[in-house]
Amino acid sequence: MLVAYDGTDFSGWQVQPAARTVQGTLEAVLSTLQGGSPVAVRGAGRTDAGVHARGQVADAALAARIGDERLASALNGLLPSDVRVLSVATVPEEFHSRYDAVAKTYVYRLDRSAAGDPFRARVALHHPYPMDTAALAEALARLPGKRDWSAFCAAACEVKDRVRTVTEASYANGDGEGRFTFAADGFLTHMVRNLVGTLLEVARGKLAPARIDAILAARDRKEAGPTAPARGLCLERVVYDRNGQEDVA
Amino acid sequence: MLVAYDGTDFSGWQVQPAARTVQGTLEAVLSTLQGGSPVAVRGAGRTDAGVHARGQVADAALAARIGDERLASALNGLLPSDVRVLSVATVPEEFHSRYDAVAKTYVYRLDRSAAGDPFRARVALHHPYPMDTAALAEALARLPGKRDWSAFCAAACEVKDRVRTVTEASYANGDGEGRFTFAADGFLTHMVRNLVGTLLEVARGKLAPARIDAILAARDRKEAGPTAPARGLCLERVVYDRNGQEDVA
Repeated sequence: MLVAYDGTDFSGWQVQPAARTVQGTLEAVLSTLQGGSPVAVRGAGRTDAGVHARGQVADAALAARIGDERLASALNGLLPSDVRVLSVATVPEEFHSRYDAVAKTYVYRLDRSAAGDPFRARVALHHPYPMDTAALAEALARLPGKRDWSAFCAAACEVKDRVRTVTEASYANGDGEGRFTFAADGFLTHMVRNLVGTLLEVARGKLAPARIDAILAARDRKEAGPTAPARGLCLERVVYDRNGQEDVA
Repeated sequence: MLVAYDGTDFSGWQVQPAARTVQGTLEAVLSTLQGGSPVAVRGAGRTDAGVHARGQVADAALAARIGDERLASALNGLLPSDVRVLSVATVPEEFHSRYDAVAKTYVYRLDRSAAGDPFRARVALHHPYPMDTAALAEALARLPGKRDWSAFCAAACEVKDRVRTVTEASYANGDGEGRFTFAADGFLTHMVRNLVGTLLEVARGKLAPARIDAILAARDRKEAGPTAPARGLCLERVVYDRNGQEDVA
């Protein structure tokens, strides 16, 4: 399933007791379509509370065979308006949304309008402050590559191997919206939000672009900037190897 | 004040006891800025519950003089993120947001995507059904003009004079979004939503375009189609006479 959601009113992707989560909502609806038997849904990215998705990928094994389009329509007929199944594809039984993903793209949106746009308040960080885009570009250019990202990993991050390959780190501005784009073979907990928090300090002149190298080398979360709020972040795309698993995104 | 709001979580513009309204929210914030003394805010359009605005105009008489830009910043610092003051202008004391408005433009948005876009669920009606745009254009062409709009006025409408001059009635489609645009010297209660509900019946082939003339002539609400949901509607712009009052929009 290719899934889009406004994460504002969800306690994140992952099922939690007594909380409204995207995974839990999808599992409940799929279970209903299966006459009440439980269904496990696996997602490519376990987005945090308040984080959005335009291209989340999730898989589930169903007991009954239903045509892809009919299944998408049935799901959307039961789902609330803040989570939608954009498309469904039948995949080999061994397909795993998370393990088979070869790359992901996250976008972090800034609302650059002076007063703040009420129609973007849920999906962008209001950031009307001046930005030194030359310094920002210099800092961004230091990011792509295969390296240890411990400096940008949440303190609570339990993953031992913090080496990831970032293939894109960019910023573009248009129509009153600023967009950071990050692509990598994988991301650590809070990695994009910590990168954005740090990059906004560079853009405000509080941190020299060259400091990025020292922060990366220190591998210490305390060296980097603050964690940017969840609401600007969106899982935009998940890529699968066309030669291996089907590209459902 | 030029005001924008996401109307989803408001019980409309107008102050009501124990309800969250845009007027009430603005009055509370202005009162705070005046040290607690009450402030009356008047708006150009009394939008219904769930209806949005990108260009509402509202006025208030303040006891203390504050610079326009400083006032806008102070207001936005206190207002919630779903209502924003885009700009402030000082106007002559006799200015009246509603009585001095010479024209208004409303837009009604349709989400034309198959699954429904979770990021447009609050501001557009999900309408993935086929639309006969030729029939729709034929119906729309019958609307502009100075006439009695009783057929499209809410049953509860208390206004006696239902003659208004509609200067634009159009539909455009792009980027998965359909947009009805209506401009007039004034609108009756539910007029745009009743027009859209009727026009969607024309687009679905349930009503012949020529029936619009008969509905208008009958001046009977029961002849027209259903009232379209509030969430697609937005007060886009209010126009003032440049030669008379200042154009604050």
